[in-house]
Amino acid sequence: MNDLDIAPQIAFAGSPLDRADHLRGDAAALNRLMDGSARLLRLAGIDPVISAEGGLEWGTLAEADGDTELAFLGLLDGRARFAAIPVSASVGPPPPRMWHALSELSPADLATYGMARSLVGWHARHRFCAQCGAPTVLAKGGWQRNCTVCPAEHFPRTDPVTIMLVEHANDSGGAILLGRQPRFPPLRFSALAGFLEPGETIEEAVAREVLEEAGIVVHDVTYVASQPWPFPSSLMIGCHAFADDPAITLDANELDDARWFTRAEVVAAMAGDPEAPFLAPPPHAIAHQLLCWWLAR
Amino acid sequence: MNDLDIAPQIAFAGSPLDRADHLRGDAAALNRLMDGSARLLRLAGIDPVISAEGGLEWGTLAEADGDTELAFLGLLDGRARFAAIPVSASVGPPPPRMWHALSELSPADLATYGMARSLVGWHARHRFCAQCGAPTVLAKGGWQRNCTVCPAEHFPRTDPVTIMLVEHANDSGGAILLGRQPRFPPLRFSALAGFLEPGETIEEAVAREVLEEAGIVVHDVTYVASQPWPFPSSLMIGCHAFADDPAITLDANELDDARWFTRAEVVAAMAGDPEAPFLAPPPHAIAHQLLCWWLAR
Repeated sequence: MNDLDIAPQIAFAGSPLDRADHLRGDAAALNRLMDGSARLLRLAGIDPVISAEGGLEWGTLAEADGDTELAFLGLLDGRARFAAIPVSASVGPPPPRMWHALSELSPADLATYGMARSLVGWHARHRFCAQCGAPTVLAKGGWQRNCTVCPAEHFPRTDPVTIMLVEHANDSGGAILLGRQPRFPPLRFSALAGFLEPGETIEEAVAREVLEEAGIVVHDVTYVASQPWPFPSSLMIGCHAFADDPAITLDANELDDARWFTRAEVVAAMAGDPEAPFLAPPPHAIAHQLLCWWLAR
Repeated sequence: MNDLDIAPQIAFAGSPLDRADHLRGDAAALNRLMDGSARLLRLAGIDPVISAEGGLEWGTLAEADGDTELAFLGLLDGRARFAAIPVSASVGPPPPRMWHALSELSPADLATYGMARSLVGWHARHRFCAQCGAPTVLAKGGWQRNCTVCPAEHFPRTDPVTIMLVEHANDSGGAILLGRQPRFPPLRFSALAGFLEPGETIEEAVAREVLEEAGIVVHDVTYVASQPWPFPSSLMIGCHAFADDPAITLDANELDDARWFTRAEVVAAMAGDPEAPFLAPPPHAIAHQLLCWWLAR
């Protein structure tokens, strides 16, 4: 498939920021950029501050405390953009009420916020060297932390997660395997997912996760689309796979339930039909785009 | 494309280990597995110990010092497999001489070693909590480290890297953009590559890297195949993209050179022709499989 067919709808993708990588290591250039024209992303800790017009708020660098570390996000509309490292940063997703605020942001603002959240959250959780325990300091404009004692250099992490639509082909248009995590709201089902581990390909991770969580053997794994997910810093890698044997063996430690849904049932759920047998994943989740992609095939 | 067409040749993929995720959190079950039948991967630090027959060497758990942390790799041939956390672990690739030893391993042994190397290397470099600086201890059979002071839990990291063949379509079968990193041996050219950053999709990371390193604008990015790369813990995400304008603007901080090579030139290099204009990437690098895939299209 051409992944660009669905990319415009993927939440947190499509930031208009120029990351200006060449400036990160140039301390003199960064210092020149940190003048009155530079803009500081207003944050409440790592949560967004949203203007009355529903956009991200930007202030000047003067709003940051003098000893706060600043990360260089990039260039936008001719201005250097920074974000302050908060005192602490949780790794969990935002509370449900914040999704309402996030849903007011333009796709561009949502992408800029997501990148900033992942980056400053990482800094807040990495003030010490994992190798020796000594304090670390921000380096390369915020794209690195260096230990103050040993030679270790640390880089922002991005954790690949495979998320997959498993299809059982049949004469009535096929069925898709979806599961319920315990933390989901009532009736919500979504694509199975799990962190990729050291020593496996994307395709191997997809097969392992589906086998672990649902006891299903898959084949012909293909990549569909990806999404940066800033809670705290995942790369969601959306895939499709086929299963021949639909018999489910549930891992009750991971999932409350897993079921096959027909094409007609998925159509109803995605349309928000109150009679649908499940509540579809929300539009900001890549599982939503994967289901759109599957229905359009 | 069907990525399975090239998967069998991808080095470090295809481990026969059953990761047995359900046992990791079951301390009683893990303890029962750590008996005389369990096997310890023999390592020289994080480097492999290779038998006279060219295979990985396995000993018993009695070979590990009493206070050494052990990571549970999984089950193989009915036996639990473990590896000891070394005192230290460098993040660099192995020296050239070690590639000769690695090339003697079977694909299955190479994959098992790569997974173990990434995992135990991560432990060796994460003995302290990045959040508070206190010591950490191994948990979940080696798939987690917990802080001994604060509530932080730490997980092995896998760093996504995009690696891409950029194609300029023309009447003579197309040309491919390859670059030379300063550390490469003479004449070696390979696919451009770079770490994916927080806040971008795979496709966005491909476009950014090619623009940064070679000044080339790409479109129609597609995923081809992936590879776990254990130096120290990358996930190589192999992609293909098209470029309309072939004019190169080199980032001399990243690359010594970047050039377009015709199909005939790539054929010659992949065949090891001494007259070829460049030395092809070695078979253990996914760039080699990407070029095979491109030639076969």
